[in-house]
Amino acid sequence: MSSLTRFSVAPLSTMTRRLADVASGRTAPDLVIRDARVLSTYSERILPGKEIWLANGRIAAVKPAGTYKSGSAKLYDARGGIIAPGLVDPHIHIESSMVTACAYAEAALLNGTTTIFCDSHEIGNVMDVAGVEAMLEDAREAPLSIFLTVPSTVPATSPELETAGGDLTPEKIAALFDKWPEAVALGEKMDFVPVAMGDERSHAILAAALSRGRPVSGHVYGREFVAAYAASGVSDTHEAIDRDIADDLLEAGVWLFLRGGPPTTPWHSLPEAIKTITELGASHKRIAVCTDDRDADDLLLFGLDWVTREAIKYGMKPEQAWAMGSLHGATRFGMENEIGGLGGGRRADIVLLSDDLKPVNTWYGGELVVEGGKITSTLDAALSKPYRYPEAAYHTVKLPKAIKLTPELPTEKVIAHTIKTELPGITLGHIKVALEPANDWQTHFDRHGLCFVTVIERHGKSSGNVGYGLLNNFGLKNGAVASSVGHDSHNIIIAGTNEADMQVALQAVAETQGGVCVVVDGKVTAHVALPIAGLLSDKRVHDVADEVKALKVEWEKAGCTIAYMGFNLIPLSVIPEIRITDKGNVLVPEMAIQPLFEAV
Amino acid sequence: MSSLTRFSVAPLSTMTRRLADVASGRTAPDLVIRDARVLSTYSERILPGKEIWLANGRIAAVKPAGTYKSGSAKLYDARGGIIAPGLVDPHIHIESSMVTACAYAEAALLNGTTTIFCDSHEIGNVMDVAGVEAMLEDAREAPLSIFLTVPSTVPATSPELETAGGDLTPEKIAALFDKWPEAVALGEKMDFVPVAMGDERSHAILAAALSRGRPVSGHVYGREFVAAYAASGVSDTHEAIDRDIADDLLEAGVWLFLRGGPPTTPWHSLPEAIKTITELGASHKRIAVCTDDRDADDLLLFGLDWVTREAIKYGMKPEQAWAMGSLHGATRFGMENEIGGLGGGRRADIVLLSDDLKPVNTWYGGELVVEGGKITSTLDAALSKPYRYPEAAYHTVKLPKAIKLTPELPTEKVIAHTIKTELPGITLGHIKVALEPANDWQTHFDRHGLCFVTVIERHGKSSGNVGYGLLNNFGLKNGAVASSVGHDSHNIIIAGTNEADMQVALQAVAETQGGVCVVVDGKVTAHVALPIAGLLSDKRVHDVADEVKALKVEWEKAGCTIAYMGFNLIPLSVIPEIRITDKGNVLVPEMAIQPLFEAV
Repeated sequence: MSSLTRFSVAPLSTMTRRLADVASGRTAPDLVIRDARVLSTYSERILPGKEIWLANGRIAAVKPAGTYKSGSAKLYDARGGIIAPGLVDPHIHIESSMVTACAYAEAALLNGTTTIFCDSHEIGNVMDVAGVEAMLEDAREAPLSIFLTVPSTVPATSPELETAGGDLTPEKIAALFDKWPEAVALGEKMDFVPVAMGDERSHAILAAALSRGRPVSGHVYGREFVAAYAASGVSDTHEAIDRDIADDLLEAGVWLFLRGGPPTTPWHSLPEAIKTITELGASHKRIAVCTDDRDADDLLLFGLDWVTREAIKYGMKPEQAWAMGSLHGATRFGMENEIGGLGGGRRADIVLLSDDLKPVNTWYGGELVVEGGKITSTLDAALSKPYRYPEAAYHTVKLPKAIKLTPELPTEKVIAHTIKTELPGITLGHIKVALEPANDWQTHFDRHGLCFVTVIERHGKSSGNVGYGLLNNFGLKNGAVASSVGHDSHNIIIAGTNEADMQVALQAVAETQGGVCVVVDGKVTAHVALPIAGLLSDKRVHDVADEVKALKVEWEKAGCTIAYMGFNLIPLSVIPEIRITDKGNVLVPEMAIQPLFEAV
Repeated sequence: MSSLTRFSVAPLSTMTRRLADVASGRTAPDLVIRDARVLSTYSERILPGKEIWLANGRIAAVKPAGTYKSGSAKLYDARGGIIAPGLVDPHIHIESSMVTACAYAEAALLNGTTTIFCDSHEIGNVMDVAGVEAMLEDAREAPLSIFLTVPSTVPATSPELETAGGDLTPEKIAALFDKWPEAVALGEKMDFVPVAMGDERSHAILAAALSRGRPVSGHVYGREFVAAYAASGVSDTHEAIDRDIADDLLEAGVWLFLRGGPPTTPWHSLPEAIKTITELGASHKRIAVCTDDRDADDLLLFGLDWVTREAIKYGMKPEQAWAMGSLHGATRFGMENEIGGLGGGRRADIVLLSDDLKPVNTWYGGELVVEGGKITSTLDAALSKPYRYPEAAYHTVKLPKAIKLTPELPTEKVIAHTIKTELPGITLGHIKVALEPANDWQTHFDRHGLCFVTVIERHGKSSGNVGYGLLNNFGLKNGAVASSVGHDSHNIIIAGTNEADMQVALQAVAETQGGVCVVVDGKVTAHVALPIAGLLSDKRVHDVADEVKALKVEWEKAGCTIAYMGFNLIPLSVIPEIRITDKGNVLVPEMAIQPLFEAV
């Protein structure tokens, strides 16, 4: 186990006498951070001329600069820099970064983030409770404060529409709450239509959380659903994509997490949603910022610190924005006595910032883990002893021996139900294409801008389900791309122009028990191995980021018009208009399987 | 039991499907409050043109006015008035009003207050855990949401300095937390000096709360104590009496409850403390308002609604002030998903306000309990079936058979250590008066402006302890005043000019097993009976208010220069400079007994 974890700082209840002694000046602090300005997330002011006294990994007191004279305390000179609480990310999915919790910690701490609330529903979809629990063990051993919002919507749809590895029933969710104190909330309740419609299982899951005093995190689109969704007990969301739904949600008593993402992606909804404050005059006190999902390489560039600065760019004062990045998320989850501010007794999760609020140093539980933008040897040592996932997590790609990856060529004229990809890559169009008989698939592909897309069940729960489809406008010129990350059931999705390259791609993914790869002319040109649950690399974050960067280069070279994260969403059969699962093509509005070909 | 209690509204977890149905328009609400403006404590705006849909005692949705067409829902026309959440009082002592929890409810609801967080440390000082638990039963049966902040400092000092009826050890406090879910926090930790000094018992009590995830309410004077106090885990206070200590506390991570009280009393600290916002620019998001203590008659005139309006008078916007009166207290105690705003799923604790924020109607859990400033028959019925306290609570004045109530007349010249009362009545001066020998006490009284003050142990825990003292400047001309409320140990305190009237006063208090009275020339001219624990009347609030008003008239007629609430504080041996207990005169700075007379 890492030597630096959330548990390295003992509970406040065990040390109040020591902290009172230090704060009163009767005994020396462990560390004094001198000559600082303090960004107060409580009063939303920057206070000059301060110093911070630390003891036992907690804040004993903030005092006027120069109060500590001399003694056994270590001294750290902030040189007039801004000291602020570490950031608190109220909604993320670690698996989106394809790294372990421990690896994620490195990126988070570099960005000044010291606490995250993660929803591990991807690994839940693959490994059920065992996956969620393995990730909790990983989280407990990581040098970061990681709390769980229990996956609430696994599987995303029903066994009729797809085969998932997990099935988190109300009973299993209740058991997770009762077993794991860090399971502080119910995670992103994605099935907002069933919730609004009063679906029995959905509400039984809500009740499992609410009856235990755990709040419920949400995910909702469409102003018409807001009232019923809030009345069902959902009290936060990160999916407010415009000003008006953000305003509706706020008024319905729902905390808003403004999501920032790389500006080229559709995840960057902060600039619109923040207008509830800047245009409609709402108070920002129940509004936080979050990251939600990040590619491994984007983790380092577009962290929560970046989102916080985006809030400033779009109209908040720096002190307000930092409060939205720290205290507000802590308050939403009832942890503001522990994190989110520099109050007495709080964990010494502290950042030193430049004047434009870029993290320079991070102290985690009083330990200096990032200095001058680089990790310290203390953190390096902690990161080098990560949690080892159970053996079962390394064996989740269970395929039949021989699988044909492409559909039979139609011999008659047919209507093909194709899946049109387009930027930004979330919704997919349902395009019916009339296919005249041809000698080979390539002729169809050239005529209509198509390629194959195939989803292969990989949980060993079927007799080798394979769903065949056709992508329209995907742009893949020659070869194949494959991924064992295929939301939310995470069956293997392969797009390709020919059976051979698709087989090579499948083989590459299977060999590493999960991964994302690009194949051209029978050769693997990029490959990110994801051996843990077929979702996570077991490498450190910079290595994964490098692999992802290389993958993206090859991905784009192959001609793919949407990014791999969008590609991985193609099986997510809850977003319009048409998706593909191991059971075949799914028409989302009808929630029904659509055969690929229709006779004319 | 009353038919209307906190439990009349079932938990949200049991009814989310019904609320989703109503909010979606699939089934009718129980009640629609039409044609309203909505005061949003979330966004801090007043939104025109709304209606509120209620079901099962909760808010199903706030909709645009006119959305509900027709059907089975009852309709209530708000006629364009302001609808807001019921007020939440984050810190009060019910016993200060000398009424039961049930009786308190009537006044609270008339003021638009629907939730209170009370610290029943007075009854704890008399009856130990049994008193606290009796009041919790009372609270459970009252038509008001009453949560407990567990008394933390009983007794206020030590057995060397006074005899108390209660001794709430860390173990007993822990047991109260474990037994009573409504025990949501540790109450007012009044011994801030021992806390700051690291006292073992004080910190064991803090640990009992903190280790159970319960926050700690505070009480602190003196900027020099703030750092150690906050570092000890205290996270709210209502005792910030000026701008600068308020600002220090806020920065130390402590929630501020601005206390408002009748402007003639010393309790009205809001006007000064609020300057942390209005002069120093702090955010108000972690600031609430509270009432703390109220005479029964003042309850009706100076409720939390009045305090909220005072916040407006001193610079807040109405929407901000109402949020400080409702949502912020709820948030501090982690209950903002249940109360404090008009969000979906919240309890329908709602007020209809005039444009100057005076409560006109109150709905408690969806029941109309106050209409047009008067209680409804529903509430009247609920109030007429109050909880009956256990028999032991009616027998707490345990006196020896014969007690002499005045000290021996000195035969030699002596120095008398007198207790000087002066407005506002909190701190008491220590005045040494040289007494030349005289024939009777009246000669001394006339010469020096003195009268007797005597404290009689009434818990049956001593062999008849009586403490004798002399009040200086109290103004009592002729007769006696007595009270079984004598903070915090609540022994009987009697002031008087002669033994006979003092005996009549003691007799009057003893006969009703507690009370406050005025005696002139051997006759009781006013008497408020307090048979429950010697602290509480068993009458309804208006009756007690009338009795208190009559008492105040006689009290003033008798010449007393400080009010009876100040008089009751004379035994509180933690406020400078000198107090009197059943053990004698106590010098507070030295925490030592001072004999009344000193030989010259």
